[in-house]
Amino acid sequence: MSVLQDAVGRIAPPDAGAAEAARRHQDDLTKPPGSLGRLEELAVRLAAVRGRDAVPLGACAVLVCAGDHGVAARGVSAYPAEVTPQMVANFLAGGAAINVIARATGARVAVLDAGVAADLPEHPGLLARKVRRGSGDIVDGPAMSREEARAAVEAGIEAAWSLAGEGVEALAVGDMGIGNTTAASAVVAAITGRPAAEVVGRGTGVDEAGLARKREAVAAAVARAAADPADGLGVLAEVGGLEIAAIAGAVIGAASRRMLCVLDGHPATAAALAACLIAPGAVEYCVAGHRSAERGHAVALEHLGLRPLLDLELRLGEGSGAALALHLVRVAAALSAEMATFSSARVSGPAGSGAANPEEPVPTP
Amino acid sequence: MSVLQDAVGRIAPPDAGAAEAARRHQDDLTKPPGSLGRLEELAVRLAAVRGRDAVPLGACAVLVCAGDHGVAARGVSAYPAEVTPQMVANFLAGGAAINVIARATGARVAVLDAGVAADLPEHPGLLARKVRRGSGDIVDGPAMSREEARAAVEAGIEAAWSLAGEGVEALAVGDMGIGNTTAASAVVAAITGRPAAEVVGRGTGVDEAGLARKREAVAAAVARAAADPADGLGVLAEVGGLEIAAIAGAVIGAASRRMLCVLDGHPATAAALAACLIAPGAVEYCVAGHRSAERGHAVALEHLGLRPLLDLELRLGEGSGAALALHLVRVAAALSAEMATFSSARVSGPAGSGAANPEEPVPTP
Repeated sequence: MSVLQDAVGRIAPPDAGAAEAARRHQDDLTKPPGSLGRLEELAVRLAAVRGRDAVPLGACAVLVCAGDHGVAARGVSAYPAEVTPQMVANFLAGGAAINVIARATGARVAVLDAGVAADLPEHPGLLARKVRRGSGDIVDGPAMSREEARAAVEAGIEAAWSLAGEGVEALAVGDMGIGNTTAASAVVAAITGRPAAEVVGRGTGVDEAGLARKREAVAAAVARAAADPADGLGVLAEVGGLEIAAIAGAVIGAASRRMLCVLDGHPATAAALAACLIAPGAVEYCVAGHRSAERGHAVALEHLGLRPLLDLELRLGEGSGAALALHLVRVAAALSAEMATFSSARVSGPAGSGAANPEEPVPTP
Repeated sequence: MSVLQDAVGRIAPPDAGAAEAARRHQDDLTKPPGSLGRLEELAVRLAAVRGRDAVPLGACAVLVCAGDHGVAARGVSAYPAEVTPQMVANFLAGGAAINVIARATGARVAVLDAGVAADLPEHPGLLARKVRRGSGDIVDGPAMSREEARAAVEAGIEAAWSLAGEGVEALAVGDMGIGNTTAASAVVAAITGRPAAEVVGRGTGVDEAGLARKREAVAAAVARAAADPADGLGVLAEVGGLEIAAIAGAVIGAASRRMLCVLDGHPATAAALAACLIAPGAVEYCVAGHRSAERGHAVALEHLGLRPLLDLELRLGEGSGAALALHLVRVAAALSAEMATFSSARVSGPAGSGAANPEEPVPTP
């Protein structure tokens, strides 16, 4: 049995009983019912994922998957491809935005090289799982073979498993790869059937001419590939990218180990879209960290039925929006675990409610 | 000179030079220009407030101002008035939502009693500045005298000054007071001229009949008071509340000491609206922490020209949304202070940009 088959087979439904208990517990906490809004939803989701409620969240991690894209040579990005390995070095040195954001919420950063088109030096923070040196140009042919796509997915699964083995309970997933919003748009278009114009945005800030090239590349790649929209691995191989496939694997790996998986922006959510074709149960373990400013992201979120937690007009990638949302996950767990209940704090419930009132009268001060 | 006059006189314009330098610095950091979206805006605002950029944020605090409301006797809230002192005790014991949220971002919680209608025990976390035991019923007469309003405002100013003296650099302000969304709606209606129907919501979850009573109370109070909409102190005295006046003072106090002031939901933002009539320069020191589910909040935000950072459907108060946003403030400061620059990390800038390229060629790996 392959790692992928093994992982998919291990994905169990979330714990409905724990979710229900968490929902009831929310109403015992010293706050009006529902007044913590989406943090209450998040606490319930987390309880379903973990199979237990009212326990603070332990270790968290950000997994940044990196890879290069043959299509970058078509001028679809504002940045040259050499930025991919440069930014990986920046992640490993701790100087990128994701490092700062992760530190602020006490998460560690792991970097997975699934297909950077350069040799990278060994580093304890780098998971070296290069499948090939960059993908092929998706306009001319497949990004990679089906076997390469599977290898990249399995690299992501094993990265998630390795982090789970170290005690990580919630995983933010992000991407690094010049040209990858083009591939992500192609994945979203191939799966959802939406036209290129609706799923292509400016990425890191490409100009008008670049945007036109990007739209053309996506439309041409999707038409050339004519991929089966229900075949996640096939779509990843045809029009995806190595780091996108690895993120899809991380989503599956997280779900198979009952870790909450917090998705970053466009490439990470496109990866989740493919992952959920391969393993439909994985979506129950996913949370959308933020709404990216990138156009195709909204389409992927809608298709997955996920509402993002944050909308800060980020369009950086690296897992930045997901790592910011990890703080909300941590807070949601802490609220459930640490808040007083109406009876323990002797706080009165709603007027006329009876049930939520303290068992003894509050002493007159 | 009164404390209020002194504080208002000390509010200087934010530092435009520091803001401009912060804006330039953002473009040197290893990310596409603008890709950190609202976190970049926040870093620039923070630099303007502090007069310096690229310095991590030190201590943060949440100031929860508490008071009772005569209008609560009209059945405008889902909860009985005795919940106000009970929740103050919960804050001091560390069991409320705000305590958990503040701990998660390393902020301390201070509670100011500006007018709770009960004697509260002494506690090191409690600033005992009770002006009177609850406000008057705003439908029948003024909430308090003008002198009482000034005293509550000054209690808030002095609380902010005291926290500034302890090294606090960013202050989240929140409220506790059963009935206070009714008073907040009246303040917003009196200042903006909007009808009660547009500024009244369900607060902690009042039912349909209670909502109708709340609308009537707000309309009646605003009509009775006929307050000068440009007289912040007059509006607070006529239709406000003691904790709302104290929060207005905290906003002014924060601005006078160059602290960023992160506003919570409806009562805190109504307080800021009044504060900015008394001291128009204070708005430059304010950030809207979140968009509350409460209706009148949007009206107050619009009037202040502030866009909230978070939208998590919270409607709790206590400073909960503001304290969550403090984490974003901390992250924005850390990004500016800790991220590598293009040249320091030897990361290439946009294709053809030249300027942002590293000074030396990146060694071929």
